[in-house]
Amino acid sequence: MTTAGGERDLVLALSGGVGGAKLVLGLSKVVPPGKLVVVANTGDDFEHFGLHVSPDVDTLLYTLAELGNPETGWGRRNETWTFMAALEVLGGETWFRLGDGDLATHVERTQRLKSGDRLSSIIADFARRFGIATKILPMTDDIVRTRVLTSGGWLDFQRYFVEQQCRPEVKDFSFEGATFARPHKDLIAALAEPTLRAVVICPSNPFISVDPILAVPGVRDALLHCNAPIVAVAPIIGGKAVKGPTAKMMRELGMDVSAAAVAHHYGSLLNGFVLDQADAVLAAELSVPTVSTSTLMRSLSDREQLAKVVLALADRLSEREGPSGSGRPRMSSTLS
Amino acid sequence: MTTAGGERDLVLALSGGVGGAKLVLGLSKVVPPGKLVVVANTGDDFEHFGLHVSPDVDTLLYTLAELGNPETGWGRRNETWTFMAALEVLGGETWFRLGDGDLATHVERTQRLKSGDRLSSIIADFARRFGIATKILPMTDDIVRTRVLTSGGWLDFQRYFVEQQCRPEVKDFSFEGATFARPHKDLIAALAEPTLRAVVICPSNPFISVDPILAVPGVRDALLHCNAPIVAVAPIIGGKAVKGPTAKMMRELGMDVSAAAVAHHYGSLLNGFVLDQADAVLAAELSVPTVSTSTLMRSLSDREQLAKVVLALADRLSEREGPSGSGRPRMSSTLS
Repeated sequence: MTTAGGERDLVLALSGGVGGAKLVLGLSKVVPPGKLVVVANTGDDFEHFGLHVSPDVDTLLYTLAELGNPETGWGRRNETWTFMAALEVLGGETWFRLGDGDLATHVERTQRLKSGDRLSSIIADFARRFGIATKILPMTDDIVRTRVLTSGGWLDFQRYFVEQQCRPEVKDFSFEGATFARPHKDLIAALAEPTLRAVVICPSNPFISVDPILAVPGVRDALLHCNAPIVAVAPIIGGKAVKGPTAKMMRELGMDVSAAAVAHHYGSLLNGFVLDQADAVLAAELSVPTVSTSTLMRSLSDREQLAKVVLALADRLSEREGPSGSGRPRMSSTLS
Repeated sequence: MTTAGGERDLVLALSGGVGGAKLVLGLSKVVPPGKLVVVANTGDDFEHFGLHVSPDVDTLLYTLAELGNPETGWGRRNETWTFMAALEVLGGETWFRLGDGDLATHVERTQRLKSGDRLSSIIADFARRFGIATKILPMTDDIVRTRVLTSGGWLDFQRYFVEQQCRPEVKDFSFEGATFARPHKDLIAALAEPTLRAVVICPSNPFISVDPILAVPGVRDALLHCNAPIVAVAPIIGGKAVKGPTAKMMRELGMDVSAAAVAHHYGSLLNGFVLDQADAVLAAELSVPTVSTSTLMRSLSDREQLAKVVLALADRLSEREGPSGSGRPRMSSTLS
């Protein structure tokens, strides 16, 4: 597929941690080397033991480096836990589990941040050292912190997510610092690329993984005006989240717990949607082209297969549209 | 042995890391529980990765908790090194080797220091959690940092000691911050105790392990006026250091490399001296009662045996003196 500007080969993915990283790995296998850019949520980042921890970035790094723990989806394979065991004996805080190898990432990132490096250049260097061809961008080099309004008041994200294991009832989210954050320039540049083939919103939690990215000023606009179709993959299968609190949050926020509700949440950003075959019937409810397939990613081949389906849908949407993309369908922002 | 004030049962030891900790462990086995106080050198402390590292304190903690690595004398047994391996891949600084379990000590200490705890109370809590009956005191809660003047200029201690592996020629030492440091109050209190049985200067490096303790204002005076004999154990056997750079430093400083030169270095502080049987002939050169024995501590029983010899010498010196200690011999500060 070509445009006047040459081959459309650049793919941009928006991703949180575990679920998103699985699809990103799939995409990295089917997109030519160097042609995949992943924008990572950094709203989950926090300071722990004086260390800057970037959970979603690290899950992407470890997954793409194939250093990830296949059991948990986060952390590193062949990890040891000597640090946590020793810390426990000393009465240290153990609610956030840091593996020994993982700790090195946080220590080295913190050192470099202190010496004045930007988060994005640190991630780029780590990716290079890990031999990762995919470009991983933090949504911003500025500080944005997700907070969760619960029935018991506002909580810092990791306190809610890890320490309280998502038990409190969720009422709202805020992305502190987002108002003044600047999107990473390469993210905005990628969205303006004539060679952009597709934007993929990974099957991550919409509220705490994707919305923080969309909250950075300029990102939503750049997405709305980009020259490529935007396709999201549902993180809900048969009314349940594959992993994590997405379904629980939707319930608590008074939403329908369904793939369709996720599509409506993204609203006019979407040009296409991919949901699980178990939810095929929901396609009729949606005002954008919707493909149903197996979205559960157990094996690497599942990931590649889903990536291919997503890109095929994007390519189909591109073929339909006029050269300016003006003919591309968009999701209506009200429920049909 | 009793005085008007009751039984003399309190033993105070001045110690650096490895060699000192071995004798301290021996002393802890032959002194009643709670009656051994160890004053640790903190001149080796430094900040690494934003963490407060206290090498000598930790060697004492691990040794007394019997968590120490018997091969190296420092660090922890059953240690893992996943952190360092991962850090190396990320291009981090690896000249100072931090084991995964050891890292927990530094992280937790740093957290507590940041929250306003004093180093001494942190050490006391760690010792309690490790089940250590011996009281470990840092020489001061203030910051004192050993620096080494080498032929190439001044070096921070760990840069000299670990990174450059003691290769540069030593010309002098300084203990930055010592002028304004306050000795730990329990150290001064212990030296004023009528129940003090002995002060033991462990077979640590005189220049970089014991001198920093003596450099804290008030410590030398309190030692000179304490009511118990002060006995040092030579860290030099047959003109060689058991471990570390003591002999090399003595040579570079233009000193005789001998146990006798160590005794003269401590000068009028000493009331008695213990040297290795290989150096028995040197006893004649010294103006304080000197005992020769096996000072190489390979086994726990070696440590206990040496501790017994040291305390027996101290007890003998106490018996000789009048009630005020005025009759106790002191080392002359010039070579005999």
